[in-house]
This record gives sequence, C-alpha cells and structure tokens, in this order.
Amino acid sequence: MAADIAEQPAGFARLLEDGPAGAIAEVAAEVARRAPRSVLFVGRGTSDHAALYGAYLAEIRLGLPVASASPSAITLYGARPDLTGTLVIGVSQSGGSPDLAGVLNVARETGALTLAVTNNPASPLARAAELSIDVAAGHERAVAATKTYTAELFALLLLIEGIRSGDGRLPADERAALAELPELAERVLADRSAEELAQRYRFASSLVTTGRGYAYPTARETALKLMETSYLPALAFSGADLLHGPLAMTDPDVPVLAVVGDGPGGRSMRDVVTRLGERRADVVTIGAADVPGASARLAVPAVDERYSPLLDILPLQRLALALALARGEDPDAPRGLKKVTTTL
Amino acid sequence: MAADIAEQPAGFARLLEDGPAGAIAEVAAEVARRAPRSVLFVGRGTSDHAALYGAYLAEIRLGLPVASASPSAITLYGARPDLTGTLVIGVSQSGGSPDLAGVLNVARETGALTLAVTNNPASPLARAAELSIDVAAGHERAVAATKTYTAELFALLLLIEGIRSGDGRLPADERAALAELPELAERVLADRSAEELAQRYRFASSLVTTGRGYAYPTARETALKLMETSYLPALAFSGADLLHGPLAMTDPDVPVLAVVGDGPGGRSMRDVVTRLGERRADVVTIGAADVPGASARLAVPAVDERYSPLLDILPLQRLALALALARGEDPDAPRGLKKVTTTL
Repeated sequence: MAADIAEQPAGFARLLEDGPAGAIAEVAAEVARRAPRSVLFVGRGTSDHAALYGAYLAEIRLGLPVASASPSAITLYGARPDLTGTLVIGVSQSGGSPDLAGVLNVARETGALTLAVTNNPASPLARAAELSIDVAAGHERAVAATKTYTAELFALLLLIEGIRSGDGRLPADERAALAELPELAERVLADRSAEELAQRYRFASSLVTTGRGYAYPTARETALKLMETSYLPALAFSGADLLHGPLAMTDPDVPVLAVVGDGPGGRSMRDVVTRLGERRADVVTIGAADVPGASARLAVPAVDERYSPLLDILPLQRLALALALARGEDPDAPRGLKKVTTTL
Repeated sequence: MAADIAEQPAGFARLLEDGPAGAIAEVAAEVARRAPRSVLFVGRGTSDHAALYGAYLAEIRLGLPVASASPSAITLYGARPDLTGTLVIGVSQSGGSPDLAGVLNVARETGALTLAVTNNPASPLARAAELSIDVAAGHERAVAATKTYTAELFALLLLIEGIRSGDGRLPADERAALAELPELAERVLADRSAEELAQRYRFASSLVTTGRGYAYPTARETALKLMETSYLPALAFSGADLLHGPLAMTDPDVPVLAVVGDGPGGRSMRDVVTRLGERRADVVTIGAADVPGASARLAVPAVDERYSPLLDILPLQRLALALALARGEDPDAPRGLKKVTTTL
C-alpha cells in the first residue's frame, strides 16, 4: 500500500504524457461531438467516490444534469429508463463487477452513449462500453485502492475539461496548471505529518469525516480507507448533511477529519467547523485553508478547488496506512476483502 | 418521539382520504400531462432518504432516469444545468432550508417543472415550487423526524403511482393494497420486540445498517435515527457497497442491522448476510424474509417490496427510541440539533 501511494505523482505525470492524454482527448472530443444532454455515473466503493467527483465536475463545468444511479434499479428490478442523449460513465478499477457491466449493457440498448473508466482496458466493463478510458495506473498491489483512485480522478478531470473545450484538448492555462500537480503531489507526500497524526487515533472507537462540494468525495474516500485498513467505523457526511442530524453524535470522543479548501466548498465548511467546536468535537482539518478552532491541520498546497481532491487525499491515505500499522493490522491484506468484488 | 411514532398508521390513513389523496392525484395528473423526461430529487437528512425512495420508485415504476443532485453544485458553485423537461422534486419536512428553495428557484429558471413535498404548505420551499404536495403529518414534536418521514414516503408513493397511471388516480388493486397499510402498520407497532432488542445494543460502540434496492433508504434512515437519538456511530451501506470495502470493518463487536424483504432487493441480500456470517458479525434482520444465519429478527408482514419501506422503518424507529432511553439520553431533544436546519 505504501508503494502504491508513493506512485501517485508518477501516475499523474503519466496521464499528462502525449499517449494517455491524447487517448482521453479523443474520447472527450467524441463525447463533445455527440453532445449528451445529461450524464449518469455508476460505480462502487472507491470508484463511486471518483464518480462523485466526476459528477460535481460535469454539473459545474459542463452545466449538465447529473445522475448517480443505483445499479440495483436496473440489475435487480429490471428498470429500463430511456437513456437517449445520456452519457453513462461506468467507473471501476478492475472493470470486473458484473452489475456495472450489466448497467452499461442496458444503457447501450436504451440509447445511451456509454463510457468505461477503468484500470483494465480488457475488462468486461471496458468491452461493454462504446468508449473506454484507461487510467493507466499500473498494477495495484494492495487491496485498498489508492493510486487507481487518484488516476480515476485525474482521468475524469481530463475527460470533463476536454469535453468542455469541445475538441478534447485543454486550454494552455489549464495544461500549465495540471503540469504542476505531479510536483505538488511529491511535495505533499514528502510531509510526514500524517504519520504523526495517526498516533492520535490509535484508540479511537469511531471517526467522522466531512467536506462539501469538491471535497465531499475526499471525505467519503477517507472514511472508506479507514474502514478497510484500520477497521475503524468511519462516517462520512457532507458538511450540510452533518448539521441535519449526525451532529448530535459528535462529542470530544468522536474525532472529526474535516476537508477544508479555500474555494466555495471550503468556505461553506467554516460554519460546520464552528458548530462542531460548539459540540467540543476534536476537529483536524485537511487542505489549503487554515480554519480557527481546529486542534491540528494537515496542510496541503492551495490549488484551484477542482484540483484539490487530487492532493487532499494523499496525506489521508497515508494516515489510514499509518493508523492500520499502529493498530497492529495488515493494510495490504484487509480481512474479508478481495481485490475484485462481485455483486449482481 | 413515542407519540410521533404511534401516529404513523393514522398518517397513512389520512393520506388515503379523499382530500389529501385527491390533491396528490391532481399534482400527479399535471406532472403526467407535462411528461417529464427525467427526475431530479433534492433533500437533506431524513428527507433525503425519502427522496432516495422516490428515486427508486421513479426509476423502476416510471422508467425515467433519476438524478439525486447535491445542492452545493448549484448553490455554492453556481452550476446552471439545463433542466428543460426535468421534474425537480424538493423534499423537506419543514420546507425551511434555504439551499433547497435555492435549488428549486434555479431549477424553475432553467426550465424544470418544480414540485415541493413538505409538511408545511406555506414554507419557502412550497412557495418556490410550481407544484406542491402537503404530506399532512401534523405537528411533529420530536426533533428526530419519524412520522414526517413515512408521510413523505407515502406521499411520494401516491405521486409516482399516480403519474404512472396517467390521470393521477390509482388502479383499484393498488388502492386496495394501500388501504391495508394503516392496519398493518398498527400491527407492526403493537409488537414490542424492538424494545427487547434495544438492550442488546446498550454498550455497542458503533453499528452497521444495510439493505438493497427499496430497503436501502430504510438502512440509511435507521442509521440516522440511531445517530440522532443514541449518539451511536451508525454506518449505512447498500448491501453491494458493503462488500466493496466496509466488510473488513465488521467483526463480532460490530452489530449489523440488515433490512431483508422478500423481493429482488431482499433476495440479493442473502449473499451479504452469508458474507457477514463468515466475518462472525452479529446480524439482526428486519423485514419479511427469514434468513439463515441471523442471530435475531424483527419480523414485519410481507407486502409488495415497494410498500415495505413504510413498515420496515417502524420497529427501527422504536429501536432507536428505546436504545436512547436505555443509554440515558433524551430522544426528544438531541444535543446540538434544531428542528429546522439552515444550510446554504
């Protein structure tokens, strides 16, 4: 898992090379040519969090209505929605789960433009889809996904911005900003604060993660990593949903990890951090913003909030790894899990 | 909270009376006349779980693509998706949260047909929407929503089936089946098994809830009730997502509440219960199906799986109430919460 985590800056750089970036640009241009009127994402687990990031991007950057469908309506209940004019994107590291390929098959039959985003271009999901993007993260050794997650995020970012441009190619200023991300990711990974912070949670019995907007997928993915590797019940909430009920649960014994950047999503989290402080919750913030009331902070360089999910997750993956080790667990082989999960 | 819970059968009966049912049928007929091509739900907290139920219904029963949008893309990031031909349904007990009214205002400007489902027909949300449904649950005394939740479920069921019929009126067999629900709900509430079961979780430090398809909103809502009233970290997963990672977290010390009916969603949960058994998890099932491997069961009468969310939640609300009392908490006034939550 440590090796997978360390390879992420190289993964970003690889997706910016002519070959992979060009392949994504071609797919983006084809999508733009077909001009979908809405987008529907399907994914499970970590890939569902990447899909959630894609959903925010598509809604905000493309101005398209976005759905995040449950496969079960189609695979279990036989729903056959008319998907003419809809771009259906299946996101899966392995591309091997039958329910996602099933959804893409139905989507294709019902008029959708289908696209697979996977780390395995020969997978059933990629074969089921009309278009396919290879996130090119290389073999992932650990069961808990790390480098395939950020590769999915990065590929979805290149895809959506390519669709936005119309011909798949990114504007020069966007290319320049993206070219800095591998180096920024290296810098984030050189910081050892996450390992020190892990000690703080050695005896925690549960944990809350929260974020809003672009940071919400980071909160969700952090919770999943903590559950997978440290077996720590970790609850993820959007900052807004947290105030609708779960806030009652927080007290000084429930640690909170709040992802707080300096864009609109991050700014809206300040009130959430204040409310958590009133409940005397122990809040640690992650991200570019320095918020009063937090007991510690994992600082991440300030970038456009759209890019921050690519960086903010890095110290949090490291936190999950270090906490698993501190608790005497084996993060490379979580109990009860397989690399490819088969659900119908 | 106990009084609110006890009033739910009467709430079902009230929505079946000529006045409320006729008002919903008129709205349904108008929606059918406008023939939306897709549906988008917005809600927060408990009402988001009702919206999730509505999403399954609309996708399966109307064959429409359904989106469950995050308000933040619109309210924080200024997204302005083209919502022509989309039915946008805002679900809120109070109708008072500014972000939901904001989304409906934007939706109306961008071409959507807007509909508010609330317990307050004079609320900002109802005023923002072109169409409005009053779930007529009466004043809810406790902060934790119970009777407004099932009233939202029931109203959404009447709405979607009314849209399906085309003229808002339900087929005779559907009306006959629905007419039995108040009596069935009374029977479920007469059973005291939930109170006995609450003792089992007196010292639990966290809890997992799970369900699939129509039962997934029940799992989500149960987790929220436990967090709001017992301050117990409760994690809800669809049965499929549970196998993608969080399964690792389960062990004999993490109790699992699995909602297992006898329709397609319930049948797909059998494998999940088996996998949980392999992890030696303590599984209690709720619903119409008797599944091998569970250590206890809250039995609920068998109904069409579409209706089961109206009944399955009842013993689970009672469980949350009894557990809060057993842990010495005040379920009527959860710490840190207000009845109307204001998020932007």
